[in-house]
Amino acid sequence: MRILGIDPGLRITGFGVLEAEGAQLRYVASGRITSNEREPLPSRIATLFSGIREVVDTWQPTHAAVEIVFVNVNPQSTLLLGQARGAALSALTATGLPVAEYTALQVKQAVVGHGKANKDQVQYMVARLLALAAAPGADAADALACAICHAHAARGMGALGGPGARRRGGRIIARRPA
Amino acid sequence: MRILGIDPGLRITGFGVLEAEGAQLRYVASGRITSNEREPLPSRIATLFSGIREVVDTWQPTHAAVEIVFVNVNPQSTLLLGQARGAALSALTATGLPVAEYTALQVKQAVVGHGKANKDQVQYMVARLLALAAAPGADAADALACAICHAHAARGMGALGGPGARRRGGRIIARRPA
Repeated sequence: MRILGIDPGLRITGFGVLEAEGAQLRYVASGRITSNEREPLPSRIATLFSGIREVVDTWQPTHAAVEIVFVNVNPQSTLLLGQARGAALSALTATGLPVAEYTALQVKQAVVGHGKANKDQVQYMVARLLALAAAPGADAADALACAICHAHAARGMGALGGPGARRRGGRIIARRPA
Repeated sequence: MRILGIDPGLRITGFGVLEAEGAQLRYVASGRITSNEREPLPSRIATLFSGIREVVDTWQPTHAAVEIVFVNVNPQSTLLLGQARGAALSALTATGLPVAEYTALQVKQAVVGHGKANKDQVQYMVARLLALAAAPGADAADALACAICHAHAARGMGALGGPGARRRGGRIIARRPA
């Protein structure tokens, strides 16, 4: 099972690909897709959409997991974030990938063991769990963490020690309508 | 010039296609793409995305115009609306269509002549301007109104009598990154 994790954002969308075989996780790739703030919105959406398609074409994942984004303090930012997430979901479902969604809380519980973890802790644990020599960037780490979360959920496991995490499975969704 | 207007929404996305030749407008088609509220979000986004692709395939527009949505009172609704709009922009830009964006104010000014028009007035004027026997549904009317707005902007015209509308051109944006 090759999982693509996505941490959507209009300015920066993080992605991470890993392979899961039983409890074994193997890092494949990670990075970020960025869009230019000076470009008009449709152009930025197109960049994000085609960037994700390229990631899928290049690393051929069999499953995708996307972090559920939350409403921002600023409604305009919420709208922009929503549009980025819509583009990400469009790109993933258009390739026929099954897409699962996880909250940030679920992702943190799966990787760090509790939902209050900060960025540094997530980066550190992602590097440890995937036996990376160095911690990945924050966006890539969040995306990899989401993929790790899906690997655990797919095995019917809970978090690595997170209480209550066992009950929190991600919704695994069959994609692409007929 | 064959223009596809889109009024994006997660539950209902209106679309309308018209042909513009100089000042002449000719109705081609209109309708709505709906998604099932009981389905998970990625599935609804996929429905919306493929629905717009189908509309483009069927009616072969040369230009697209999308209404700029506004933040809702409810932040969660704003996020959902944003995701729907992201899917719509993804579908349009993925086909290589140039996409223009207009605010509701610009659209109303172009069609009714002032920005305070209500739904009924927009439906009535759309039917009149396109010589339709009956008023289209509200979602289709909004989408057709957006296409009419683009037809006017493309001709360098302002609204049909709307003061100040002359200065408000839509941003016409070259799509699809290399």
